[in-house]
Amino acid sequence: MHYLEDFARGKTYELGTHTVTAEEITGFAKRWDPQRFHLDAYEPVDGPFGGRLVASGWHTAAIFMRLYVEAVLADSSCIRSPGVDELRWLVPVRPGDTLSGRLTVEKVVASDRHPGRGTVHLRCELRNQDDILVFSMVLRSLFTCLTTAS
Amino acid sequence: MHYLEDFARGKTYELGTHTVTAEEITGFAKRWDPQRFHLDAYEPVDGPFGGRLVASGWHTAAIFMRLYVEAVLADSSCIRSPGVDELRWLVPVRPGDTLSGRLTVEKVVASDRHPGRGTVHLRCELRNQDDILVFSMVLRSLFTCLTTAS
Repeated sequence: MHYLEDFARGKTYELGTHTVTAEEITGFAKRWDPQRFHLDAYEPVDGPFGGRLVASGWHTAAIFMRLYVEAVLADSSCIRSPGVDELRWLVPVRPGDTLSGRLTVEKVVASDRHPGRGTVHLRCELRNQDDILVFSMVLRSLFTCLTTAS
Repeated sequence: MHYLEDFARGKTYELGTHTVTAEEITGFAKRWDPQRFHLDAYEPVDGPFGGRLVASGWHTAAIFMRLYVEAVLADSSCIRSPGVDELRWLVPVRPGDTLSGRLTVEKVVASDRHPGRGTVHLRCELRNQDDILVFSMVLRSLFTCLTTAS
């Protein structure tokens, strides 16, 4: 179990990998982000992504979240997230890309109003199979302490 | 069609509404954010959300994106988005909530490097049926000008 006490500035977590398929890209896009360059057939060769399918940025964020939940949050005292800053889509994500997730703790802030709780500021990254950073953000997650969990 | 020239500081866009169902919440969560409070059966009554199902924050962001695409982006010269700042999940989204989307143009920045392009900074909001702000962010979208589109 991960409690607030387990997070310390500078600590990193390797979150595992996820390989993206064309079906996953178009499936997500049809439901949530039906722009032409996420739907294959609609993207002309002279379009912004040169006729090639590219994942929705929200799909990319969701891939990060899945890796974070599986590696950390599923066994944690996380209550919720207040939000995100500095979210950047840096490089297009394509079918066949294998993305690796990594977390780095930037800051741990104990709650003044609620003793036994605190917010962890997490630098979140996805890199592709060429070790190129494709996605980053600073996510805040609120955890309870082990000492208040019993 | 929406081109860069159509966006001016202070202009607002009403994006329509989306009603959230329990099936949609758990369906999104199973795929992308399988935390207990997004999966109904796993959330104890004394859990952080009081035993009631709550939508994943990424699901909420995806709902916003869908409304934005349908109302604006589908007929636009949008090329891509560099990223998001100040994303905030303010109030839980529950089954049965009807969310209304709104955009306000905060800033329009012409590109120095690429004449005929520019970035629009958009304040994005979702309110529930009680007119309570549940989600907000500042999204940047890159558009080409009408004059370079032909």
